[in-house]
Amino acid sequence: MSFSCERRDKPFRTSSRTSLSLTMWSVKSTVRAGRFACRQISVEAGNVVFGRSGKQFHPMWLRERCVGPASVQQETLQAFRQPHDFPADLGIVSAQVSPLSDSGVAPRTLTVGFTDGHVSVFDADALNNEADDFAACGIQQSDIKCPDVFMWDKSTGSDVPRLSYLDVASGQPEVLLKLTTHLLRYGHVIVEGVPSRDGEVAAFARVVSGYPSVRPTNWGPVFNVRSYPDAALKDLSYTAEKLSPHVDNPYRNPNPGFQFLHVLENECASGESLAVDGFMAAEQLRLESPAFFKTLCQTDVRWENDGGDRSTALIHFAPMLEVDKSTGKLTQIRYSPKSGGYCPALSMEEADTFFQARRRFAELLHAESNTVRFQMVKGDLWIFNNLRLLHGRGEFNPNEGFRHLQGSYVDADAVTSAFFRAKYALKASSDSDSDA
Amino acid sequence: MSFSCERRDKPFRTSSRTSLSLTMWSVKSTVRAGRFACRQISVEAGNVVFGRSGKQFHPMWLRERCVGPASVQQETLQAFRQPHDFPADLGIVSAQVSPLSDSGVAPRTLTVGFTDGHVSVFDADALNNEADDFAACGIQQSDIKCPDVFMWDKSTGSDVPRLSYLDVASGQPEVLLKLTTHLLRYGHVIVEGVPSRDGEVAAFARVVSGYPSVRPTNWGPVFNVRSYPDAALKDLSYTAEKLSPHVDNPYRNPNPGFQFLHVLENECASGESLAVDGFMAAEQLRLESPAFFKTLCQTDVRWENDGGDRSTALIHFAPMLEVDKSTGKLTQIRYSPKSGGYCPALSMEEADTFFQARRRFAELLHAESNTVRFQMVKGDLWIFNNLRLLHGRGEFNPNEGFRHLQGSYVDADAVTSAFFRAKYALKASSDSDSDA
Repeated sequence: MSFSCERRDKPFRTSSRTSLSLTMWSVKSTVRAGRFACRQISVEAGNVVFGRSGKQFHPMWLRERCVGPASVQQETLQAFRQPHDFPADLGIVSAQVSPLSDSGVAPRTLTVGFTDGHVSVFDADALNNEADDFAACGIQQSDIKCPDVFMWDKSTGSDVPRLSYLDVASGQPEVLLKLTTHLLRYGHVIVEGVPSRDGEVAAFARVVSGYPSVRPTNWGPVFNVRSYPDAALKDLSYTAEKLSPHVDNPYRNPNPGFQFLHVLENECASGESLAVDGFMAAEQLRLESPAFFKTLCQTDVRWENDGGDRSTALIHFAPMLEVDKSTGKLTQIRYSPKSGGYCPALSMEEADTFFQARRRFAELLHAESNTVRFQMVKGDLWIFNNLRLLHGRGEFNPNEGFRHLQGSYVDADAVTSAFFRAKYALKASSDSDSDA
Repeated sequence: MSFSCERRDKPFRTSSRTSLSLTMWSVKSTVRAGRFACRQISVEAGNVVFGRSGKQFHPMWLRERCVGPASVQQETLQAFRQPHDFPADLGIVSAQVSPLSDSGVAPRTLTVGFTDGHVSVFDADALNNEADDFAACGIQQSDIKCPDVFMWDKSTGSDVPRLSYLDVASGQPEVLLKLTTHLLRYGHVIVEGVPSRDGEVAAFARVVSGYPSVRPTNWGPVFNVRSYPDAALKDLSYTAEKLSPHVDNPYRNPNPGFQFLHVLENECASGESLAVDGFMAAEQLRLESPAFFKTLCQTDVRWENDGGDRSTALIHFAPMLEVDKSTGKLTQIRYSPKSGGYCPALSMEEADTFFQARRRFAELLHAESNTVRFQMVKGDLWIFNNLRLLHGRGEFNPNEGFRHLQGSYVDADAVTSAFFRAKYALKASSDSDSDA
């Protein structure tokens, strides 16, 4: 079984949003009755505006999309005004689409006169695109579309995407775009041939993310995974035991987004790594039992850690599953029995549902059919979305030789902003090529 | 008006959780009928266990609280087993409270035999405390109670808590406890007399949080607020304009938790700082209109930024208000019109409610009765919870002189873990004093 979130709407248009804004005009309604269509926007009697998919546009929804000079700072497109600076009953006194036919070559626009005297001129395509795909079309930047998520199981995810260190270290936007696309689409990537230098993982994470430092942890900028404690801080990870699939640090608030895990040395044939796509397992759960899925979304459980040396408490109240409130798409998984996820004292009925749901989710996360296994070798650097992927390893035998991994975290948006930086750089370079 | 979240339950007990765990015992039900009470735990016929507030304890809820050597690693109290390692129908075959009367001096315990043969011995007080106050009583650390939140308006919040730099820099747990208690209770504190050194704010944030680095931003470890752009990155903040109350970086995913803002120089009499308790304004909104409160909790709006130089996109989908799912208590506010918070294309009815709610919330956030104003002078370092407090400033006149603020962020749990570190250190020291 494989899930893929494919968008059904038309390809994203990159035409930038254009808008004029003329305040305090004396505006008269130019549309009295009937329906005037600008390709895919229509205005009905009473200045009621509909988008191409039939959604009516609210006057305030339109107004907050005005990017004219009276509305937003022109370099940053940041809004000048506060929500209560607009009348509570803001309405539309005129709405006109232009050109009225498809024969014109100018951008198709929607001109709206508001009851406070302000007139906005909108790019009709931009309005339609955003109304139909809120996640892909922005205001301050128009193209904010991320790669579609591809969910995988053992049968569809066994080929972990791989790139070479030399390519990535070149810093070329093409390679960074490929790397971040893998991360956003599949949730992970392995970079091969990374020099086995102490601290290299943090340096590499900084190059990829574009941020000047990595996310700090109580272990410092990097943590060490060996068969003994890291700097006297104790954790089940810092042994030779097998590690069942888990996410890292669900007890941190906020949780670390992407993990960079670098093999400095591995002389052990045992201790194979494993990865599970938590989104896939959660979708399987949703399909089996919407009630189970719902209770794991709606119960704030308690994640705990003692700082590794019992000096403090790291406590986070958060559910095992999180979804986007508009689309219902999964945004985060939390699963790590060693970090608690303790259930509050619910009613018996609620507790029954919760514990059954958690048990079934754990079964799915441990199903061999959902598990991808691979051996990490010296020089491999595995990057994965810690809000989506579960990672683990088989037991290893420290007598076979030395095994030393070093890890680092960056925030979730370090990867998305690196993706956009590479995408925009390539677009700017292709635009300037076509200008030449 | 002033709100204060006072807990109604009894004072927190710090007695540590004790538990024995004896697996594979042959257990026979020791309670056949009637009710045997251990102070505030009762066992009814059929081995049904009730806590002191009358809540029935679910068998799996009890079992995940077992900290015996077969259940958890004894140094870290991290669980060994996965949820699906337990039978789906785990039940209780015996439950006994001890001692049966209040005459005994030993800790009061609840001994439970489970259907899989495992026997757990629980500290009855710990079970009751956690069942009644999930947020205050943990497993891996027992005392996880944070200070109660005190919400304020202009009349109750005008005296911003203040501490001296020399006291804080001493690193004494008493002072760090006071500082972090102010931050968790009131949402902010001003530290006076901080040396006007470039980068001092990040060094200070590291001392307070105990983390080796601050949270990175696209400006680097610190950002500069002057009347001109910071390193060519443009933002409305980097002008001399007035700044309406706002939170910083709602477009970051995750959002930065606590802000440290240090006045390196201020020769301007204008440009007074202002603070608004966003939790207070949100509670006022909830009181006025539960429907308005609800729509701001349930609508994932889109926060945006272009990286300051249009090189990238920082995009975050998140609501304006967030509450704890169990208690309904506020956990986060997002408000910053310059960063968008754009509404998706809702139905007309939903959009009406959303835009009215946002407008009313903005009015409350700008109400003079909710606004605390103060002048920051050279050496002041203002620390505030960026997930709760809104900050702003009046317009200043750069011709009056130089004004230079430097800021840094740490994650939300840097402050809570610093609070627990100080609290535990003081407890350990008072325990060793009483042992001496």
